[in-house]
Amino acid sequence: MFIAMNRFKIIIGKEKEFENIWKSRETFLDKVPGFKNFNLIKGKTNEEYTLYASHSIWKSEEAFINWTKSEEFRMAHKDAGVNKHLYLGHPEFEGFNKII
Amino acid sequence: MFIAMNRFKIIIGKEKEFENIWKSRETFLDKVPGFKNFNLIKGKTNEEYTLYASHSIWKSEEAFINWTKSEEFRMAHKDAGVNKHLYLGHPEFEGFNKII
Repeated sequence: MFIAMNRFKIIIGKEKEFENIWKSRETFLDKVPGFKNFNLIKGKTNEEYTLYASHSIWKSEEAFINWTKSEEFRMAHKDAGVNKHLYLGHPEFEGFNKII
Repeated sequence: MFIAMNRFKIIIGKEKEFENIWKSRETFLDKVPGFKNFNLIKGKTNEEYTLYASHSIWKSEEAFINWTKSEEFRMAHKDAGVNKHLYLGHPEFEGFNKII
């Protein structure tokens, strides 16, 4: 199992706009080989930002990497730059392999 | 749904020792109300450390908080200080609520 997380620091006051973008977003993930599950999750809020993360579970790291090279990935991310005004800094990717 | 993650920076070369501690650890989680799933996951390695995270899924944040106040939590963490020599800095907790 592989967990892929992309961390987003969202400017205070922009949380609902950010959430609504994800709610209306087409991810094209359902038919991707090795894809298991996707969630958008919300972490802490401090003085500067609210932390969010996309959280997806994959059969393997290989399945995830194959997706990042796919047409489905390109389509899901074609509008990514449009929402830069919501972010503090760049999204930060972290990938994790299951040990236990 | 609530995801609780504790991030551990493990000193290079200490990874197997850290993993073995978790493999033999009794977490007492199975009977805790609202507990769904636990994994130990491994992230990137840089020049200083290898990132690991404990990753548990709960029915709600409330269920997680209740667990942190329980006898099961106390028992699962009674030996936590013994392994400090494996860490670079303190573990960092992050909790996330499901949005989508």
